[in-house]
Amino acid sequence: MNLPKGFLFSACTAGIKASGKPDLALAVVPNSASAAAMFTRNRVVAAPLTVDREHLRRSRGLIRALIVNAGNANCATGVQGIRAAKTTCREVAQALNIRPEQVFPSSTGIIGVPLPVEKISAALPALVSSANDGPDALTSFATAIMTTDTRMKLSFAEVSHKNQVAAIAGVAKGAGMIHPNMATMLVYLFTDVVATPRELQQSLKSAVEQTFNCMSIDGDTSTNDTALLLASGKSGVPLKTVRREFEASLRDVCGILAVKIISDGEGVKHVVDLRIEQARNGGDARRIAGCIATSALVKTAWAGADPNWGRILAAIGYSGVKIDPAKINIYLGKQQICRNGAAVPFDRDQAHQYMSQRMYDIRITLGQGRSNLEFVTCDLTQEYVHINADYST
Amino acid sequence: MNLPKGFLFSACTAGIKASGKPDLALAVVPNSASAAAMFTRNRVVAAPLTVDREHLRRSRGLIRALIVNAGNANCATGVQGIRAAKTTCREVAQALNIRPEQVFPSSTGIIGVPLPVEKISAALPALVSSANDGPDALTSFATAIMTTDTRMKLSFAEVSHKNQVAAIAGVAKGAGMIHPNMATMLVYLFTDVVATPRELQQSLKSAVEQTFNCMSIDGDTSTNDTALLLASGKSGVPLKTVRREFEASLRDVCGILAVKIISDGEGVKHVVDLRIEQARNGGDARRIAGCIATSALVKTAWAGADPNWGRILAAIGYSGVKIDPAKINIYLGKQQICRNGAAVPFDRDQAHQYMSQRMYDIRITLGQGRSNLEFVTCDLTQEYVHINADYST
Repeated sequence: MNLPKGFLFSACTAGIKASGKPDLALAVVPNSASAAAMFTRNRVVAAPLTVDREHLRRSRGLIRALIVNAGNANCATGVQGIRAAKTTCREVAQALNIRPEQVFPSSTGIIGVPLPVEKISAALPALVSSANDGPDALTSFATAIMTTDTRMKLSFAEVSHKNQVAAIAGVAKGAGMIHPNMATMLVYLFTDVVATPRELQQSLKSAVEQTFNCMSIDGDTSTNDTALLLASGKSGVPLKTVRREFEASLRDVCGILAVKIISDGEGVKHVVDLRIEQARNGGDARRIAGCIATSALVKTAWAGADPNWGRILAAIGYSGVKIDPAKINIYLGKQQICRNGAAVPFDRDQAHQYMSQRMYDIRITLGQGRSNLEFVTCDLTQEYVHINADYST
Repeated sequence: MNLPKGFLFSACTAGIKASGKPDLALAVVPNSASAAAMFTRNRVVAAPLTVDREHLRRSRGLIRALIVNAGNANCATGVQGIRAAKTTCREVAQALNIRPEQVFPSSTGIIGVPLPVEKISAALPALVSSANDGPDALTSFATAIMTTDTRMKLSFAEVSHKNQVAAIAGVAKGAGMIHPNMATMLVYLFTDVVATPRELQQSLKSAVEQTFNCMSIDGDTSTNDTALLLASGKSGVPLKTVRREFEASLRDVCGILAVKIISDGEGVKHVVDLRIEQARNGGDARRIAGCIATSALVKTAWAGADPNWGRILAAIGYSGVKIDPAKINIYLGKQQICRNGAAVPFDRDQAHQYMSQRMYDIRITLGQGRSNLEFVTCDLTQEYVHINADYST
């Protein structure tokens, strides 16, 4: 698999994480890239996101560097937090001889603690000088942005056009506070297609809606969520000539990252692919999926591999969506466990076996219309509680 | 404390609960009582609730018996479920020589399993013959309606008027699936004031809105929630002459039951009294309280007695309510832990100590308006997950 051309990566340990693990990552685009971005819809927004929006506007969507720190969210840090994010950008710009508004900052980690800018400053020279375009550099980038993640998350795709090939590489982090719009999830998508920022924005939005906005670990939408798509243009393949293929590939890259995020969710033992079918419209389907995916009772039943369809039915019932319980069917894989909103005989051992798998799907037909939705979520385990009760501020 | 006059109670073991504990409870009103009721807003509604609505209508709100079984919710049981609830009512009516529509049925327990009517039938003769008006009978009623509750829940009040005294006794069950509107919560309020069903309905609604609809354990609204208020008229005190005092007392009785429910919540280690202040309106305050009270991250931080105000701020941010983070203050008791949406120095040891208490309050000022709300909720512990992962269907 080829990496997209036109990007350099590096990472180092700046000392922000208490663990002493790598916590600062840099991506450089020597000849600038078109950029598109989507952010959390939380009204409490971390400082870097405010700066990102300003920089995208001032640079007209042309970005030359991405700087990410893990271990500190730089959120709820007031005016000082904005100043800290801007100082970081200025210093990155100085080191690369570019303009500060061409730098895109990201942070993830604890909320409400001042960002230790001096540690970032001290680490920058080595970080900049070691940037390179090899796969190891991308891997170290992916590792340094992790917080409670246990695995780095990468995904790749290629799009060919005549004799040319464009590549997409996606990197993500996220393991808790994961919910649509979007969660402490940082996603960076690098491609070498030729595209304007506006063209990219449309492709990014479509991919995010179908993937990162269709997943939930714990229902908590974070303050720092960011998805950034950068296009260096180095492949020579214009996006508009391969739009359909490019968007399908981008969606696949995002979909794989989404599953990797859920699969690495805090304390997750089972990944559930929820399929909501025959909804009246997409909004209804999403609301029902969201209610099921955030029901503590449903999620704990999943933790116990318990085919407790009553809890699923109850969650659909309080979603606020107009449904007729008597039209609802629920399937575990191929086995039906609820027919017309009531019990149906089924093989409990087989159901328990099925739900003991690491990943499986639950299909629900509503009998209301023709809208279908796929939504990725997970169980709620004692391990999740343990992690989050003991992740101290 | 006097019990309200005009009610007889009894309970027995019908064999519905696998544990072999008492699971069938009866309240009889020899001379009939005015009734008011509120039910879950879940669209998936258990069979007894459908029958209750029909019976209240056909009896014009005059009820003579209440029959409650625990261990089986008679929900998602289709037409058979309705038939089972009606059979139960018919048999109770026969034994008491009253009309079936004067019987109010309730069920709580597992969803989707046919109600074993034959067990109820077999137990009825002894249940009816042992009904009496002593405090022990009320206690056994309160015990038999429990499911995962570890303690029975009772609360009392008196309202005096000239030389007469009217009494209120409240009985509740509920330990999971607890959330506004209302949760697997069964609440029965008995009083001997003189009132019409319409007068009672108004008083009940006001009390429920301020208590049972301002609490959450796990965010799951149940299919069986019922609050029933019965007035025998035996005190001779007309409700309209003591309305203000009666409604304050009813609210107190409900408030105490609400706290008892939360306190006995599945795996609950800490009861949190959330005070949302300076909201633009009551709806905003309720939405914010609900978001905080259902955030897995906030609730797990509470389990760890961790003053992680960032998670609270983030939950406010994704509530959908228009807020200005820079105007938000958060207090643990008297200690401020977040000022103007940002960190403020505070004594962490003292905060941890404070949050290690069984019950404490968190106060949040929004700086948006003049609406205040009190909302009772709790932490999310490993024990909760354990209970609900292993509560098998």
